[in-house]
This record gives sequence, structure tokens and C-alpha cells, in this order.
Amino acid sequence: MTSSTSGPAGSVPGLPVALLTDKYELTMLAAALRDGTAHRRATFEVFARRLPAGRRYGVTAGTARLLEALPHFRFDDAALDLVSGFCDDETMRYLADYRFTGDVDGYPEGELYFPGSPVLSVHGSFAECVVLETLALSMFNFDSAVASAAARMVGAAGGRPLIEMGSRRAHEQAAVAAARAAYLAGFTGSSNLEAQRRHGVPALGTSAHAFTLLHTVEGQQQSDWERAAFRAQVDALGVETTLLVDTYDITAGVANAVAVAGPQLGAVRIDSGDLGMLAGQVREQLDDLGATSTRIVVSGDLDEFAIAALRAEPVDMYGVGTSVVTGSGAPTAGMVYKLVEVDGIPVEKRSSHKESHGGRKHATRLAKASGTIVEEVVHPVGDPPQTPDGLTARALTVPLVRNGEPVADLGLEAARRRVAQGLRSLPWDGLKLSKGDPAVPTRMISPAARG
Amino acid sequence: MTSSTSGPAGSVPGLPVALLTDKYELTMLAAALRDGTAHRRATFEVFARRLPAGRRYGVTAGTARLLEALPHFRFDDAALDLVSGFCDDETMRYLADYRFTGDVDGYPEGELYFPGSPVLSVHGSFAECVVLETLALSMFNFDSAVASAAARMVGAAGGRPLIEMGSRRAHEQAAVAAARAAYLAGFTGSSNLEAQRRHGVPALGTSAHAFTLLHTVEGQQQSDWERAAFRAQVDALGVETTLLVDTYDITAGVANAVAVAGPQLGAVRIDSGDLGMLAGQVREQLDDLGATSTRIVVSGDLDEFAIAALRAEPVDMYGVGTSVVTGSGAPTAGMVYKLVEVDGIPVEKRSSHKESHGGRKHATRLAKASGTIVEEVVHPVGDPPQTPDGLTARALTVPLVRNGEPVADLGLEAARRRVAQGLRSLPWDGLKLSKGDPAVPTRMISPAARG
Repeated sequence: MTSSTSGPAGSVPGLPVALLTDKYELTMLAAALRDGTAHRRATFEVFARRLPAGRRYGVTAGTARLLEALPHFRFDDAALDLVSGFCDDETMRYLADYRFTGDVDGYPEGELYFPGSPVLSVHGSFAECVVLETLALSMFNFDSAVASAAARMVGAAGGRPLIEMGSRRAHEQAAVAAARAAYLAGFTGSSNLEAQRRHGVPALGTSAHAFTLLHTVEGQQQSDWERAAFRAQVDALGVETTLLVDTYDITAGVANAVAVAGPQLGAVRIDSGDLGMLAGQVREQLDDLGATSTRIVVSGDLDEFAIAALRAEPVDMYGVGTSVVTGSGAPTAGMVYKLVEVDGIPVEKRSSHKESHGGRKHATRLAKASGTIVEEVVHPVGDPPQTPDGLTARALTVPLVRNGEPVADLGLEAARRRVAQGLRSLPWDGLKLSKGDPAVPTRMISPAARG
Repeated sequence: MTSSTSGPAGSVPGLPVALLTDKYELTMLAAALRDGTAHRRATFEVFARRLPAGRRYGVTAGTARLLEALPHFRFDDAALDLVSGFCDDETMRYLADYRFTGDVDGYPEGELYFPGSPVLSVHGSFAECVVLETLALSMFNFDSAVASAAARMVGAAGGRPLIEMGSRRAHEQAAVAAARAAYLAGFTGSSNLEAQRRHGVPALGTSAHAFTLLHTVEGQQQSDWERAAFRAQVDALGVETTLLVDTYDITAGVANAVAVAGPQLGAVRIDSGDLGMLAGQVREQLDDLGATSTRIVVSGDLDEFAIAALRAEPVDMYGVGTSVVTGSGAPTAGMVYKLVEVDGIPVEKRSSHKESHGGRKHATRLAKASGTIVEEVVHPVGDPPQTPDGLTARALTVPLVRNGEPVADLGLEAARRRVAQGLRSLPWDGLKLSKGDPAVPTRMISPAARG
């Protein structure tokens, strides 16, 4: 029985996460407790000032992992012991009792975002909000970077399935989050087993070159070794398996694969060489051998551009590694966690600066009747923009946490559908892989001048 | 009391890590158990075929984390439940009893590496070695990517201290490993508290713009807010603290900082603008105010090139975020885990291919009498190269694990000294930040032809 239930999405389930934090959050807390400002009401906002160079949209990810980690943001004895090295008694008492009791609003996970989109807003005392900065940003920056790159690959694949297989190119825990983010963005599954256990991401994969090399026997030929390996794999996994045919010679490998498994062979995988040319040759060879329904899986340094370049070739599935887990050139989403309101007063660093906008905000997305989006509007809470004739408006900001308790649906499947809907809502230019401006402009409406 | 003892270096201490694995490792295992090849003696080697584009050396990192995680590579009930969905009973029995009992050799952590350097060799049955592929590569690829980038920054800083503060730009657990890797490479410390708890990395940092903004009071001026924030920080942390002076206006910020803390103020931090120009202006202003020993910390999108560009400026410390935790353009080290020997027979994918070299190997580094290295020699075990006149040879490969038990010194401080020694051993060209070839060539000596 496969246990593919969707487990907790937090960092590592059940472990305290409070020290996944920058020291300055606790020294600020200590100073704020001492002068009494710690209990002022604060709103911190997570947003990206800009998209990675040339990107046209981003995919919000990390929301569920953060919300599920929140109850584990507690300072246990080991954490308090460390903190006692630099914090005073009042701060220690505060942290010993810490739990987040505030509210969180934001975009549902999987929603597209653009520059300035307030993907998360955290409300509470300054003290309870300030300590969440690093954890929130780590989760949003990594997961959104992977999901945003993965969505481009899903678009480039034009409906063909993609497998995430980059675990080995990422930190071992980041790999689990990357598998989840890629699946969220529309990948079919991942090689990562922990991602299946923890998040219900379907685990996929069959064999590596090592398995063929393992069947090396002195005095026999490479083709003998390869056939022995294929036979062992088919015996264990059935003819529906995927055989890796490029350990020695691809033409011989394909012939060996069909000779061993028969024309009902599920798939062959090619992991090297000019994948476009090889896919065509292998398709022809498979068809000639009667293996007309045997699929072709390609892998090996694929990114969204290489995937797009293979759209005219007889490729049935892509295996993607390094590029997806490293955000395909943008390994972090560049989101920031900024204090935007204190006791109802909008605040911002250097008020003349255009990049930071004070005040608690919501967002609304305008679209044509066809569903194609035209504008992202970020506006003060309770003051949505007028909807121009012929357009529809959709509120993007939803309640995520109330009084410290998650209130949103954190389901990964729903988030996955949201990404698919988002990609369909983009104007055509927004799906282009070439560098360009964000697919739609963001309009920032400042809070009304205060009297 | 600060509890800065060096904790376990594994993934997340005490947690099982067996599912941080690609599914194909277990399907290969199942097929190999079925046809009896699972018990053949195997050697897998971890190496990088090439360095990231233009890099001149790499820094080996991840060794201690892997060795400390090895005892936790066990299949508990939750793991077995998941595996039962696709593995047969024999495989289940094997995994239920799994523990690694083989040997591991490799470079000590912190040693430089070059293309083809066998940084890790894992020996045992095929079955016990094949399942470690993903975990080993995840740890080596991430940690080495960060350590390699960090070492370039340490070189660029020319002896000035560096603080790693990029936790928020990386997956929350990757951030802990990144802090460790940066410290290993010579950074002074990190903002990350868990890295102090888990690895003994000194935690540093004082405050963010949010703390100044928190002191916003309607009816007062920005300078009043800023002074109130500085006063609170100095009251809590003492005059030796670092005050962040660029929330509103830097000149006013510096004046406020010295007015509040006095000329004994520890440091000011500048996080935006043209850091070189600002550092000069701020130094002059501080000196004029009598704060001649107040240091200047700069941060904000620094990478090794920006750090080098500031060497002529009066900067006392660098805070580095995004670029170090993302490997400064190379977020993964590109290492692979390849089967190189089966029952004493050297094996390799496509024998004509130059990039993969069969057979169990050790490495030796040749240097001039001055200590400057000249060549990396990778050779069959027990068959070291002749040492040319005037050169010295140093064996790089050491025993790391024997019969499943770590036998090497895994100390982070020793690894840190090894990086520093390695950087001193590079030829001058090897320290250049510009793109170029590896600092020394790698010579691969093939195993003697077998009879």
C-alpha cells in the first residue's frame, strides 16, 4: 500500500523552527520590550520589489509550509539556552511563552504574483510579528523561486508531463520543498520519496546508469551486461517500466530494451546527447521494432528553453533536474518582509522612495471578460479600485490565519489548479520565455492622506 | 550563557533521512536483490566533472554533515510504509535491517577540489551504497557550492571580516547549512541562530529598518523616531552595538547615532546606496564627531566583485546575503555519484568517453617548495605518481568511515583552517575573480590495463 496522504507542509514536521531565525530579530525584540514599543500593533508585508530579470510573472508558493510551521514556532529549552547568551530576562520570559496569536492575510498558494503584490500580510504586536521574518522569507523565497521556474517549464512543455528529479542538486531538505513546489506548478511528480511521504507528491523513477554498469562481467560484452540489467529490471518492475538506453550505445540499447521487454515496454529514457535528434531516431527505431506505444523520456540538463526546443520532437516526457530546483537562474524570489504599518500609521523606509509603500494593503486583479488579466491593483484595505466597464475584478487577498489559527484551505491540489488557472489567465506575451516586462502592470494606490 | 557547542552536523539532528532519496535507488535495489547482483562489491565516487563556468577552484564541503547523517539513514515504519507501495517483500526486509556497514574515503572537509577530484569514495555492497546517492549529493552539492562562493568572497575581502546574512534567501534548513559552509570558508559568523545551536557558528546581527520604523510617532519628526530607536537599542545592547543609519537620511542617521551612543559607538551599518562613496563620507563624518574607532559595516546585494571593489574604501566589515547562500551564480556544485568499480572491475559509462574514469582512485597534490600547488593527480589506489624533483606530494584521500563508523576528525574549526591553508596554496592566478581555467590541471592516471 502506498501511503500517499498529504502530510504536514512545515519545515520538518514536528520540529521546533524558532531558531531558523536571524539573531537581529531577537535583539530588536529585546530592545523593543525594554522601551515598550514591542506591543505596538504592526503589519509586516511580504512582497517582491521586482521579478527576477526578464521574468513575466511569479507563482506564490510557501504559504502552506509557513502556516503549518507556525504552531511549531516555539522556543524550547535548547532554543532558550542559546538565546540566554544575548537576551535579558524579560525577553527570555516573552520567548518562553511565545506563540503567534495574530492574523495573516495573503494570496492563496499558487496564485500568480507581480512586482509589489502583497503575497502575505502579518498582523499582530511588533514582538510577535518581527520574529517570523526569516522563516517566512526562507519559505516564500525558495518555494516561489522553484514554482515560478517550474511553471515556465510546464508552459514550455505544452501539455507533456514533466518529472522533477533535481533533489541531488539541492540541499536535502530544500529538495523536498522543491519537489512540492514543482508539483504545485504542474509537474506530474518527483523522484523524491520524502516529498511523497510529507506532501503526497507522486514519486517516480526507475533506474540509473549504475544499474547497467553493475551487471559488468569480465569476458562478456557490453550488450550482454546491458541485457542482463534490463532483464533484472523488467523481472522486478514489469514491462511497463522505463529502461535507460544510453549507458553504452543508444541504438544497441533500444534494441536490447525491446528484445528483453518486448514491444509492450513502457518507456525508454535518454539522458545524454542531442536529445532532439536522438528522440527522432529512437522513435523510428521503436516503431520499426513494433514498440509503437513505448514512450520516450528525455533528461539531462533540461531547462525551459531546452524543453521548448523539443516541442516538435517525439518526446513523451521530460525529466528536469538542476534547473528547476535552482529556479533556472533565479534561485531566490527576492521577496522582502517589511513593516508597513504601526498602530494604524503607514510607515516606509525613506518616504520619497518609490519601491516601498506604507500602509496595510489588499490586492485586486482586473481581467477582460475572456478571463485574460490586464492589471494588478494594490490598494489600502477596504478601499478597492473601481472596476472599469468591460472588466471584471477579483479580490486576491484572503484570510489565512485568525488569532494564530490557520483558516484557509492549504490543499496542494487546489493550489495546483490555481497555478493552471493563473497560466491560462495570462496575456499571450506573459507566456513568452524570452526576457520581458511583467505580463501585467501593477498599480499601487497609496493610502489617503491622513488629516 | 551562550551554548555554542558544536552540535551534530547531519541534516536535522536525530531525524531519519532515508527518504531524502530518489525513488530509482530503491527500484534498482529491488531489481538487484532479485537477480543477486545487489551483493557485488561496489565503489561509488563523488566528483565534479567541471567547475562552475570560469571558477578556478572549489571547496569541499558537506563531508561532516553526511558522515553525521549516516547513522540516521534507517528505514523507520513511516518510511517502510511508503516503500511498501512499490517494493517487494525481499526489498522490504533488506531495508528494515539497513544500516551502512561499508567504508568511505575522501578529501577532508575544507580541502580544495578541482575537476575530477574524487572528493568522496563509498565502498560496500552495491545495495548499501546505491541508496546513499541522493543524500550524499544533496549535501556535497549544496554545501560545496556555498563554501566555494564564500571562499572567493573571503579572498576578495582581503582580511576584513564577513558576516553571512542570507538565511532569508534560502530554504530554511538550507540556510543553516549555508551558514556553516560560509563559516567553514572563512566568514566570521552568520545571522542564523540555528547554525550557532547546531554547528557552533557565531551568531551576529543587531537591527533592521523595521526597528527604526517601529518608533514612528505622529506629530514628531523622522529624526526623533530614529533617535528613539537608537536609544532603545543602545539601552538594550550597549554602546558597542551596530546602529543601522540609512532608514531615512544617512548623514542625519550618523549624527543621531553618535548623539545617542557617544563616540564609543561600536559600529554603524549602511545597507543601501553607493556603498563605496557612502563609506568614505560616513568615515569622515564619524571622525569629525570624534567616533574614530566606530566601525563601518556595509551590506546590500554584495557579491565577491562588489566586495573587491570596496577594498580601497574605509569599510570594516561586510554583510553578505543572497549571493553567498545561492553560490554566487553557481547554486549547485554539479557533483555526481558514479559507480566506478564492481567486484574489482573498473566500470564507466561509454568507455570512449573522457569525462568518466573507472576504477577506485585516490588523489595526490603536487606543490613547489614554497607551498604553491602545481598539479592534482588522480590515480589508482596504491599507485601514487612519482614526485618530480623539486616538488612535494601530499596525499589528499583519507579514511572517513570504516565498517560504517566515522573515523575522521569532523571538526568545523579544523576544516576552516584547511580552507585558509588551501587558499594560501593557490598560484596567484587561482585567486583571480575573473573567469578562467582551474588554478591547477588535473592529471588522471588510468588503472593499468587488466590481463
